[in-house]
Amino acid sequence: MSGLKRLIPILDRVLVQKTVAPTATAGGVLLPESAVQKINSATVVAVGPGRRSSTGELVPMSVKEGDKVLLPDYGGTTVKLEDKEFHIYRDDELLGVLTE
Amino acid sequence: MSGLKRLIPILDRVLVQKTVAPTATAGGVLLPESAVQKINSATVVAVGPGRRSSTGELVPMSVKEGDKVLLPDYGGTTVKLEDKEFHIYRDDELLGVLTE
Amino acid sequence: MSGLKRLIPILDRVLVQKTVAPTATAGGVLLPESAVQKINSATVVAVGPGRRSSTGELVPMSVKEGDKVLLPDYGGTTVKLEDKEFHIYRDDELLGVLTE
Amino acid sequence: MSGLKRLIPILDRVLVQKTVAPTATAGGVLLPESAVQKINSATVVAVGPGRRSSTGELVPMSVKEGDKVLLPDYGGTTVKLEDKEFHIYRDDELLGVLTE
Amino acid sequence: MSGLKRLIPILDRVLVQKTVAPTATAGGVLLPESAVQKINSATVVAVGPGRRSSTGELVPMSVKEGDKVLLPDYGGTTVKLEDKEFHIYRDDELLGVLTE
Amino acid sequence: MSGLKRLIPILDRVLVQKTVAPTATAGGVLLPESAVQKINSATVVAVGPGRRSSTGELVPMSVKEGDKVLLPDYGGTTVKLEDKEFHIYRDDELLGVLTE
Amino acid sequence: MSGLKRLIPILDRVLVQKTVAPTATAGGVLLPESAVQKINSATVVAVGPGRRSSTGELVPMSVKEGDKVLLPDYGGTTVKLEDKEFHIYRDDELLGVLTE
Repeated sequence: MSGLKRLIPILDRVLVQKTVAPTATAGGVLLPESAVQKINSATVVAVGPGRRSSTGELVPMSVKEGDKVLLPDYGGTTVKLEDKEFHIYRDDELLGVLTE
Repeated sequence: MSGLKRLIPILDRVLVQKTVAPTATAGGVLLPESAVQKINSATVVAVGPGRRSSTGELVPMSVKEGDKVLLPDYGGTTVKLEDKEFHIYRDDELLGVLTE
Repeated sequence: MSGLKRLIPILDRVLVQKTVAPTATAGGVLLPESAVQKINSATVVAVGPGRRSSTGELVPMSVKEGDKVLLPDYGGTTVKLEDKEFHIYRDDELLGVLTE
Repeated sequence: MSGLKRLIPILDRVLVQKTVAPTATAGGVLLPESAVQKINSATVVAVGPGRRSSTGELVPMSVKEGDKVLLPDYGGTTVKLEDKEFHIYRDDELLGVLTE
Repeated sequence: MSGLKRLIPILDRVLVQKTVAPTATAGGVLLPESAVQKINSATVVAVGPGRRSSTGELVPMSVKEGDKVLLPDYGGTTVKLEDKEFHIYRDDELLGVLTE
Repeated sequence: MSGLKRLIPILDRVLVQKTVAPTATAGGVLLPESAVQKINSATVVAVGPGRRSSTGELVPMSVKEGDKVLLPDYGGTTVKLEDKEFHIYRDDELLGVLTE
Repeated sequence: MSGLKRLIPILDRVLVQKTVAPTATAGGVLLPESAVQKINSATVVAVGPGRRSSTGELVPMSVKEGDKVLLPDYGGTTVKLEDKEFHIYRDDELLGVLTE
C-alpha cells in the first residue's frame, strides 16, 4: 500500500490526533484519573483553508497546525490514515487552544 | 504533568469559573439559601476573539476577563484544567454582567 | 452578602420586574380579576446595548429603563438579585410599551 | 385603576380589535352565517415601527392604524387592556387589507 | 351587508379563485376526469406588493392579476369574501403560469 | 377543452418530462434492467426565470430547455397538462446534466 | 443504448467513483482489513460550477477532477451511468483531499 500520506481538510475542517493519556507509562505505575483533560485534548495535524462566509469569502481559521486544542464532548468524525486514528472537526466545534 | 496552563477560547466562547456559594464558611454557621444568585454567577477567566458575522468579520465580545456574569439555567460545557472545574459558554448565552 | 447590586443585560436582553397585582390592598377588600393585564405587565429595570445584526452592527433596543411593557404569555428567564425576583426577556419577545 | 391606556406595539407587531359579527342586532332578527369573513377581520388599533432587516434597518409596515385587515386562522396573542380584548399579530402574519 | 369588496394581499401573498371544473355542464353530460389539471389551476384575483428581501427591499412578484396559475397540491389559506371562496398563496408557493 | 398549452414555471422551478424506459419496444424483446439511469433522467421542458438571492436579485438557472437532466430519487411535484405527465423540480434539486 | 456518456453536476455537486479496495488481488492472497481508509476514499470524476452565495455569486469548489477525496460516513447519492456506480456529494460534504 503506497502512500496516501496526507489529508488536506476541506473548507473549515481540522484534522487532529488525540493526545494519548499516559496511563502507567514510566515504570508501570498506574496514573490516577486526575489527568482528565488529556482525553479531550488533541494536536492539530492539518487545517483546511476556511469556510466561506455568506458572501462567499474565506473566513480565517481559529487554529493552525501544531496547536493543542480542547475538543468538545461530542461530534467529530473518526478517520484512519495508514492505520493511525485521526479525528476531523469543524473549526467552530473546537472549544479552545491550550497553551503553557 | 507539566503545564497545560491556559485555555484560549475559540471564536465567541467564554471560559468561566462558577462562584462558590459560601455555605457555612465563617464559623461553621450554615447560611440560608437566600443567596440563590450566587449559584448562577461566575467569573470570566478567558474570552475568545469573537464570532464571525455573516460577512466574515469579528463581532466584539460582550464580556471581558474578570467580569462577574450571570449564567443561564441550562447549557455550557464543563471542562477540567489541572483538576479545577471550569465552564465554557458562548458570549450570546450569558445573561448579563453583575456590577456592584 | 456585600453588594452584587446591578445586572447589566448582555446584547438585546431586558431585565424587568413584574407589576404586582394589587389584590386586596387598600382596606383588605378583594379586587376583581378584571385587572388581568397587570399580571403580564412589567417595568424595565435595565436594558442591554442591543443585539448584533448579521453584519455585526448594534441594533437599537425597542425599550428603555423605566418603560412599562407588556410581556408575552410564555418565555423569559427568572433571576433573583438580592432576594427580589426579576425576569429577563429578549427585546424582540416583548409585545409592546404601555403608555397612559 | 388609573389609565394604562395605550399599547405601542414593539417592532413589527400590530394591535388589532376583532370585528364583532352582528348576530341579531337590528330588531333581534338572527343573521345568517354567510358573513363568515367578519370573524377573521379586524381593525388595526396600533402598529409598531417595523422589524429590523438583517442589516439592522427598519422595514416599513404593511398596515396602518384604522385599516381593516384579514386575519389568519391561527396565531396571534390575546391581550386585555382595560377589559377590552385585543389581539397582537406580526405584520407578516396578516393576510390582507380589506377595502370597500 | 355593505361592501367589504376587495382584499389587497399583504407582502408576497396572492389571492386566487380556483378554476371550477366543468363537470357535466353543457347539456348534462358528465365529463371524464381527464381534465385533472383544472382542479389545481386558478385565476389570480389580486397580488400583494411583494415580500421584503433580507436587506429590506421589495422583491418583485412572479404573477399579476388575471394570470392563470398552477397551484401546489398542499398549502394555501381559504378565505370567504361575500360568500365566494378564494385562496391565498405566497408567490413562492405557486408552481407556474399557464399560457395558451 | 381549449388550450392551456404551456406552463411557465415560477422562480427557480423546472418542468421536466421523464425519459420513458424502452422496455421491450423494438420487436417486443424485453430489455434488461441495466438501463437503470433512464428512469431518473428527464428532459427539461421549461424553466423559470430563477430564484431571488437574499438581496433580491435573480440567480441564473443551471439548466435550460432541452437539457437531459439526472433527477434525485425523491422530491418533485407531478403535474398533468393535457393528459401528459410532467414533473416540477427546483433547479437546486436536479443532480446534473447528462451529455453525450 | 447510445451514449449518455457524461454527467455535469449541478451547482456544488461532485461526482465521484469510490476506490475499490484490493481484496485479494495480486496472487489471490486475501488482504487484511487494515486498509480501512480505502473504502471511504474516492476519485473525483466531475465537479459542478459551484453553489451560489447568499448574494448570488458562484462560490469556488474545493476539489477538482482527478482529486482523491475522503468521503463522509453517511450521505451522498448513488447513481448509475452505463452500468458503473458513481456517487454524488456536495462539495461541502467531502472531508478532505488525499495527497501522497
